[in-house]
Amino acid sequence: MGNYTFCGVDAVELAEKYGTPLYVMSEDEITRRLREIKSCFEGGRADRATFFAAKSFLTKDMLRILTREGAGLDVVSEGELYLAREMAFPPERIAFHGNSKTELEITRGIEYGVGKFVSDSVEEIELIDARARLAGVKAHVLIRVAPGVEGHTHRHISTGGADSKFGLSLSSVTEAISLCGVFKNVSLDGFHFHVGSQCMDNSAHVEALRVILTMMLKLRDTNGFEARTLDMGGGFGVRYTDNDSPQPIAEFICGMTECVGKFCKESGMTMPALIVEPGRWVTAEAGITLYTVGSVKRIPGGRTYIGVDGGFPDNPRPALYDAKYEAVLANKFGVPPEETVTIAGKCCESGDVLIHDIALPRAARGDIIAVLGTGAYNHTMANNYNKNTIPAIVMIKDGKPRLSVRRQSFAAMFAGDI
Amino acid sequence: MGNYTFCGVDAVELAEKYGTPLYVMSEDEITRRLREIKSCFEGGRADRATFFAAKSFLTKDMLRILTREGAGLDVVSEGELYLAREMAFPPERIAFHGNSKTELEITRGIEYGVGKFVSDSVEEIELIDARARLAGVKAHVLIRVAPGVEGHTHRHISTGGADSKFGLSLSSVTEAISLCGVFKNVSLDGFHFHVGSQCMDNSAHVEALRVILTMMLKLRDTNGFEARTLDMGGGFGVRYTDNDSPQPIAEFICGMTECVGKFCKESGMTMPALIVEPGRWVTAEAGITLYTVGSVKRIPGGRTYIGVDGGFPDNPRPALYDAKYEAVLANKFGVPPEETVTIAGKCCESGDVLIHDIALPRAARGDIIAVLGTGAYNHTMANNYNKNTIPAIVMIKDGKPRLSVRRQSFAAMFAGDI
Repeated sequence: MGNYTFCGVDAVELAEKYGTPLYVMSEDEITRRLREIKSCFEGGRADRATFFAAKSFLTKDMLRILTREGAGLDVVSEGELYLAREMAFPPERIAFHGNSKTELEITRGIEYGVGKFVSDSVEEIELIDARARLAGVKAHVLIRVAPGVEGHTHRHISTGGADSKFGLSLSSVTEAISLCGVFKNVSLDGFHFHVGSQCMDNSAHVEALRVILTMMLKLRDTNGFEARTLDMGGGFGVRYTDNDSPQPIAEFICGMTECVGKFCKESGMTMPALIVEPGRWVTAEAGITLYTVGSVKRIPGGRTYIGVDGGFPDNPRPALYDAKYEAVLANKFGVPPEETVTIAGKCCESGDVLIHDIALPRAARGDIIAVLGTGAYNHTMANNYNKNTIPAIVMIKDGKPRLSVRRQSFAAMFAGDI
Repeated sequence: MGNYTFCGVDAVELAEKYGTPLYVMSEDEITRRLREIKSCFEGGRADRATFFAAKSFLTKDMLRILTREGAGLDVVSEGELYLAREMAFPPERIAFHGNSKTELEITRGIEYGVGKFVSDSVEEIELIDARARLAGVKAHVLIRVAPGVEGHTHRHISTGGADSKFGLSLSSVTEAISLCGVFKNVSLDGFHFHVGSQCMDNSAHVEALRVILTMMLKLRDTNGFEARTLDMGGGFGVRYTDNDSPQPIAEFICGMTECVGKFCKESGMTMPALIVEPGRWVTAEAGITLYTVGSVKRIPGGRTYIGVDGGFPDNPRPALYDAKYEAVLANKFGVPPEETVTIAGKCCESGDVLIHDIALPRAARGDIIAVLGTGAYNHTMANNYNKNTIPAIVMIKDGKPRLSVRRQSFAAMFAGDI
């Protein structure tokens, strides 16, 4: 019994030193996971690349880690590209995604020389071609295809179905390839697909691969178009609670590469270069959020609500997806659970509940709660609802915490007001 | 046929001048609505007050309007109070809500001398008392009661039920009143309740009023406690689409005041001072959001997706509540609808869809779309997901637009990064 430690650091001391709510991230865990994927997927091969999905977590420190580890970056906006440029992230290791890129975004991508555009439409490729011509360069493009296979996950994060804002439908690909033939400043390198997020196993991925590979073979045989690159997206599930049992990442990804290898061997198709785009898998379990308890409401004969000093503004995922998390009472760690409680955020909104029905030791005002597994899609989705400031991020490396992102100030929050 | 105008201003010209995505708000409409509520509810009476719910929309300009119109302000955090102080908003016209106020928030409220704390627990009132004693003042407190009546609305915004993080349960109120008797620096002025948001009629409000008034009468008769103030919350519904038919506000609120008047007359209870707290009703229909079309995806034999340059980051309500909106193609206004489309946001997330299945003229890249009724809970819930910047706000008064909040810059977005 005592205080909860995260990566060797006392969580209660972190809360005291940096204040709450507080995001805490482990650089060690992020690094370990990046290396694990690179090891099982790339294994030193030049025709394999791991592009981290910036939308899951993006800070200057994260870009420093990715640069050091030789990983690539999947960006989806001018803003993500802006930070990559600020940090001089190698442009050839950047893939620029997005279903509705603005003209400015395309211009910025060309200016910086991103390695690949991942494009959803011929109209966009036409724009990329025009911008590349103005710049006197050749842009590399992957066409995003909707394989008609849905990841088995929340409907908000399932992206591979045919009825989706993402990707060209299979039936449109042949025409798109031939239309793209006239674009002199575009090199069509191949295809991208993404079935969905937080998939517990690779069954949807392998199913989608078979669809895409069959399409690629047909394109080769009937149109003479040979895809050199296949970007297989991400979606590798993580463990938020005991109800999540994700397939080990090596198995998950090896199942995918083996599927490609077998198909190419049997069909005589040249093995394409492969890309994966993990985001959540790298960062989700590498982060926790610390809160201070502000209120305890025990309804006679009913539920007990533990109110904390954050919630929806730093973690909208429970309200958005009914996402589940685990938590510990950091200053009473190891104390046996005494009651089942609901951890409620501080926003004036009933939907602002972080965790329903979790067993905890008896909590009181001033206690510190650590919600686990908050490293992905928490900081990147943070907002100022109820004019709460966005928490600081502390990064831990070798058991030593350092401030990575400062807490937003009220002055900064209202800086644009006239 | 031509361009859509909002409050006499050409929406396409606004998009060109200020860029998109862009929030456009009408000061005239906000003012008209504030006056309508004040007229039907207050009618010049000193024992009635209208407190605007800052969480629905809060900027410096909004505070200027509220100050000018003599309205009060319902704040729920240090951040909302911070801006009110910056703008020297009259403290006596501020009510400070929140289910899990931090100690700092209570201190700030005492420092500024807010007119009322709305409190959910005896523990919090004890803290308010301690801080008021240190400051040598008397704090005025309303106890928030959960009437056990649910507003007929989305579960995320229904707040009046007994199983809620908000308010004291009815069975706890008597004990709370007597516990509060020892607090010398607190004046218990009465009660607050809020049944939920976006209610189409006052049936839940009137039902809750009967419960609360009966409780108040019982407290007077058995404990000698007379409540001087009753804050009846907000929740007055607005029209987002043709499916919403909210009761006219005068009827909605008069039904509530009449219920109180009748109860007091019949029971001999002194008529309490009354407060209402409209938020959405004042601002939702006073705002629109302008977007530029970035992509059109026509799925052969399937849906058509119109991709725009904003979405979830500026309006998370469709993803959060399945909220419905109407929209027009601003540069093709009056052109008969030609197809049913889905308006998709630009985030890499299937859930980022603004409107499902709306009939519009045929759209193309570069068109301007105006989504209507976005004046409440859009800017206050805005976020930087996918590192999109928070749009500017343009305010229109007397047919003249002016920049009210500047568009966030990328430099500002990443200013805290070390």
